[in-house]
Amino acid sequence: MRAKREALKALFTAISENKVDRDIVDLLLLINSIKGVYTTSSCSGRVGIIEEPKIGAKPLSRWIIKKHAPITFEEAKDSLKDAREGIIFLKAQPPIFHIVGETPEIGKKLHEIGLSSGFKYTTFKALSKDRVLVEINGTEYLTVPLGRDGKVLITDEYLEFLINLANEMLERSKSRLPRLEQNFKKLKKELGEDELFYELNPPRAQYI
Amino acid sequence: MRAKREALKALFTAISENKVDRDIVDLLLLINSIKGVYTTSSCSGRVGIIEEPKIGAKPLSRWIIKKHAPITFEEAKDSLKDAREGIIFLKAQPPIFHIVGETPEIGKKLHEIGLSSGFKYTTFKALSKDRVLVEINGTEYLTVPLGRDGKVLITDEYLEFLINLANEMLERSKSRLPRLEQNFKKLKKELGEDELFYELNPPRAQYI
Repeated sequence: MRAKREALKALFTAISENKVDRDIVDLLLLINSIKGVYTTSSCSGRVGIIEEPKIGAKPLSRWIIKKHAPITFEEAKDSLKDAREGIIFLKAQPPIFHIVGETPEIGKKLHEIGLSSGFKYTTFKALSKDRVLVEINGTEYLTVPLGRDGKVLITDEYLEFLINLANEMLERSKSRLPRLEQNFKKLKKELGEDELFYELNPPRAQYI
Repeated sequence: MRAKREALKALFTAISENKVDRDIVDLLLLINSIKGVYTTSSCSGRVGIIEEPKIGAKPLSRWIIKKHAPITFEEAKDSLKDAREGIIFLKAQPPIFHIVGETPEIGKKLHEIGLSSGFKYTTFKALSKDRVLVEINGTEYLTVPLGRDGKVLITDEYLEFLINLANEMLERSKSRLPRLEQNFKKLKKELGEDELFYELNPPRAQYI
């Protein structure tokens, strides 16, 4: 249970420092209040524009705009003025959750919840003797190179088309979050609540 | 072992009917010749242009060009004349393999091989009591909407930029296949060869 204690402390600190996407704070608290379950990382889904020095050079990449909600054509267009070096990508990414189940049986339940909530890229990311790390993930990924080294190669008409599509994909993927929450509420009834969670003073009253 | 027998029969038939990507036939035969291991599906990595009637409507989508090797600007440009209905996407996809390990221990070895060969999206897709399904997958995905309902919204200059990048990503992801093959050769030494594989008359002499 030591690992869950550390994970909860880190989560509560992140929430109190506003470092967690607001629209999934309640869901994360719900998940972590379940006995035998905790999250290690998550993102509520986002749209943005990023510069990557080379293909696959993730650590050196730089977001020039990033939002967990739809962006406007004007915001996108404006942000492109900041492009300097590397390949410029527009990205849409669905919500993603890394969740530990403290037994293989709990891990399988988490996996089922992801799939039955419509997150079709849900997989087991790691298996150890007793714990299972599940990734709940959607399929709505868009990765569109827009230009290179500050030079944008697309028209306004096309940018608008891209932004509309990226926003539509983001909203589509986020629309599954309420179902995910319902399914975790059911899981909490089944597995029970975790005393440790309440002991550590979670940041929001409705879960205490 | 019944499941492996059926999987091998299906694979050998597909190979003899030229339905398996040629550049991974030897690798697939190698993997399936290992005791306790078999593949259920695979793709050697591809670049292509596809029409999707709606976002996420995969079953109704239609490839207008698809190759397991780089495509030229002219091929792409030419294929766009066939666009009719739905959103037009340029896609680059890395090699992907679905491989069953007949014990959890073998499943973990398959997962390790995927990661250590540079396929960073390698996950456990399904766990049953005795078997484990591993997905070996790369990260080099490109999903670029080019237009809608037959109308292409991009310039030739931009299309050329996209095709070059898609080809680069494909080649980058495929460049890991020799390492994957080396690692499966080591696994074969460790786990031994499967008599069933040879019993069923595999289609290529060098593996008999």
